Amino acid sequence: MAEKLTKQSNDYSRWYQEVVQRGDLADYAPVKGCMVIKPYGYALWENMQRELDRMFKETGHVNAYFPMLIPESFLAKEAEHVEGFSPELAVVTHAGGKKLEENYVIRPTSETIIWDTYKKWIQSHRDLPILVNQWANVVRWEMRTRLFLRTTEFLWQEGHTAHATADEAQEETLRMLEVYRCFSEDYMAVPVLTGVKTDREKFAGAVRTYCIEALMGDKKALQAGTSHNLGQNFAKAFDVTYLSSEDKREHVWATSWGVSTRLVGALVMAHGDDAGLVLPPRLAPHQMVMVPIYRSDEEREATMGACKKLEAELKAAGVRVKIDDRDHLRPGFKFAEWELKGVPLRVEVGPRDVASEQVVLAQRHSREKAPHPMGSLAADAPRILEEIQRSIFEKAKAFRAENSHRVDTWDDFLGTLNEKGGFLYAHWDGTTETEATIQEKTKATIRCIPLDDDVEDGACILTGKPSARRVVFARAY
Amino acid sequence: MAEKLTKQSNDYSRWYQEVVQRGDLADYAPVKGCMVIKPYGYALWENMQRELDRMFKETGHVNAYFPMLIPESFLAKEAEHVEGFSPELAVVTHAGGKKLEENYVIRPTSETIIWDTYKKWIQSHRDLPILVNQWANVVRWEMRTRLFLRTTEFLWQEGHTAHATADEAQEETLRMLEVYRCFSEDYMAVPVLTGVKTDREKFAGAVRTYCIEALMGDKKALQAGTSHNLGQNFAKAFDVTYLSSEDKREHVWATSWGVSTRLVGALVMAHGDDAGLVLPPRLAPHQMVMVPIYRSDEEREATMGACKKLEAELKAAGVRVKIDDRDHLRPGFKFAEWELKGVPLRVEVGPRDVASEQVVLAQRHSREKAPHPMGSLAADAPRILEEIQRSIFEKAKAFRAENSHRVDTWDDFLGTLNEKGGFLYAHWDGTTETEATIQEKTKATIRCIPLDDDVEDGACILTGKPSARRVVFARAY
Repeated sequence: MAEKLTKQSNDYSRWYQEVVQRGDLADYAPVKGCMVIKPYGYALWENMQRELDRMFKETGHVNAYFPMLIPESFLAKEAEHVEGFSPELAVVTHAGGKKLEENYVIRPTSETIIWDTYKKWIQSHRDLPILVNQWANVVRWEMRTRLFLRTTEFLWQEGHTAHATADEAQEETLRMLEVYRCFSEDYMAVPVLTGVKTDREKFAGAVRTYCIEALMGDKKALQAGTSHNLGQNFAKAFDVTYLSSEDKREHVWATSWGVSTRLVGALVMAHGDDAGLVLPPRLAPHQMVMVPIYRSDEEREATMGACKKLEAELKAAGVRVKIDDRDHLRPGFKFAEWELKGVPLRVEVGPRDVASEQVVLAQRHSREKAPHPMGSLAADAPRILEEIQRSIFEKAKAFRAENSHRVDTWDDFLGTLNEKGGFLYAHWDGTTETEATIQEKTKATIRCIPLDDDVEDGACILTGKPSARRVVFARAY
Repeated sequence: MAEKLTKQSNDYSRWYQEVVQRGDLADYAPVKGCMVIKPYGYALWENMQRELDRMFKETGHVNAYFPMLIPESFLAKEAEHVEGFSPELAVVTHAGGKKLEENYVIRPTSETIIWDTYKKWIQSHRDLPILVNQWANVVRWEMRTRLFLRTTEFLWQEGHTAHATADEAQEETLRMLEVYRCFSEDYMAVPVLTGVKTDREKFAGAVRTYCIEALMGDKKALQAGTSHNLGQNFAKAFDVTYLSSEDKREHVWATSWGVSTRLVGALVMAHGDDAGLVLPPRLAPHQMVMVPIYRSDEEREATMGACKKLEAELKAAGVRVKIDDRDHLRPGFKFAEWELKGVPLRVEVGPRDVASEQVVLAQRHSREKAPHPMGSLAADAPRILEEIQRSIFEKAKAFRAENSHRVDTWDDFLGTLNEKGGFLYAHWDGTTETEATIQEKTKATIRCIPLDDDVEDGACILTGKPSARRVVFARAY
């Protein structure tokens, strides 16, 4: 706490790294590209998991677990899939003191091992749909890594569903995209665009990839979740068929969808400021921290007594509250530490506060500070936390609105991208070639073709060829 | 369901395999020694996780996550540890298309990577204790595998704590042993012995290993959980020291403790019978299943209506209830299926039941069946479920009492082991040599030196040398 954080405006990437490490979310591991998720960061991930898991179950899904090791030959069964993932695989060649007859890869994603299993589970239309999710670790050997955003090993959930019809699979793909959108906006307070990926950006093996795209504090985009319509690609690769109610043998239709510990990075960059993290109350490990202020044993007893009484009332009101009773640290140090860690509400309780039956309530996101009657704190806290949640979301929405631009010419595109950044709504001729050229020239990629109905004729910013709608460009993580 | 299960008395091991697979708990995977945990089996594991996680947090622990890949050189830092685990390692030699400079092993357990991290976390006595748990997958390349009981990859939790004093570490070791005992007895309804492992059976790298040992339906023992006092072994291997309040640099004291998906196997074998699984209500994914019985659309409407009304009431009472509304299956088939799956209570609702406002309530564990008034079902169900929980536990305790024997001579030992099995309380001279000879001759191992105060002078059953207390022998999984 002694040293100040790097300012976002000085070096955003360094600010990010500092806030993640000094905010006790994660640290680098002695394993290339891997991280240790520290207890505070893991508690945040657990809160995300709990809400997502509930939303998955409410939409009819169940959890299961499939092996982490996948026979190397499985990957090869789906041509695009193996091409996409081969460069990133970690390979087990020896085990139990011997060279293996067939190598295993550590799952980079589980479509292949799961569809090999579904072949056994699916015979008839009565076995469908299968609505399974898995919470797991995966490994993708990445060259450039960054805590939470891109790590060699990461934690995620991967849904894998099997359906009797193309329509059902498409419905499911969109249902889960909507679950992700709700989670991101309602819990993370991060507004997201929903859209379709271009062929160039879609998942290796998917027919169509949908995504949620968020805007970070440095005006770069982050893909926060994807939902894939896999068509019959994996069913064909693994020969998974079912007997329909009309007694016909058909290939099964599939989806897969996932979000990962990357979401923690999204949360950091969507709301954080120069003082550190700003956590939305619905996901914050501690929603409120109480700091007793005292200079004598007598004062300590009085302020700690008041804190303990409040703590009991707040817990009964469902508030995740913590008393910072560390004796060897000054209050000012504690304030800075909990600000860095993004705790939404700080309660300061000094001897005079106890006497006048009030506390000082400090809001992390607005940095406002005001007295609050002790007697009504527990009753008011849930409402105040919900207001903060809403306020953080509104701020992020306003930021995105300010940083979304419609651009119509190449010069305008270049100028806006370089001077302002953000989401650029522009016309594109629909070809992979143009997309690749634009990326080469500018490092901007098409984040998505938005799902809204904003259809409008225009001309491609690069080639001038006709375009039926705008797509969203941005530089991205 | 068409085919009957193998009887336990005909072939226990085949019964186990059938009940796990046909009861939809797990299946073999196309990866040597690995399993797929199916949704029903995973729901059981999730219920176990939820209670264990709550108990860990109530005893002051927090969760974190450490990398799955461990540099090969880390293992070698603790001599006993590397010797114990080397034969079981899976090794990653290639990644990202290249041969690695240093191989990684997939964690067989995480002491080494965690103590390498703790070195960074611990400077002063103020950083202690560290009370961290991790939910994770681990890989141990086993020769003979069996679903849940011993698989190449398994899911588990591993607690890793760091303390300032030897006393604190010992206290923690015993605290977690007690958590495991409570969980096993209060939730799994499986009575366990608590005790210390002999040097020969202790964890590679521990000073002392404590365990909970359970008796399975075939009178073989199963180690269900372990809690290790690691002394300063890992702190010394990784050079982790702290500055004490007296300004002295000291090595840190450590514990580790774990339970795994093996507990699912324990549950199956502790309570199952010839009709299949018997799940304790506190962990059962479905505590109650309702089967509507009808022969016409009209009857269907009436019985389904009654079921839905009851379902709402039962859910409001906190009961995990499911309606089996599959139209294409006969009630008798459904009864057998839910018996196989071990659902504690079955509710049958036929048209005459609706008319007389009652249901038929069938208890899985006792296979008793009796009418119950519809109006009081929801109010009575929680109490009935608790009675079943207690009754299953009492039955398992009685079974263990029947199958615990005190034996005093070698002939008595052999005879009892071969004719009766179970836990054999016998005197042992305390040497590893005698322990090994007994195992060689009989396949029985010392399960533990019990923690109770049953101290009594005697003579070793094999060597006749003096012994100060009985230890517990058994053939074990």
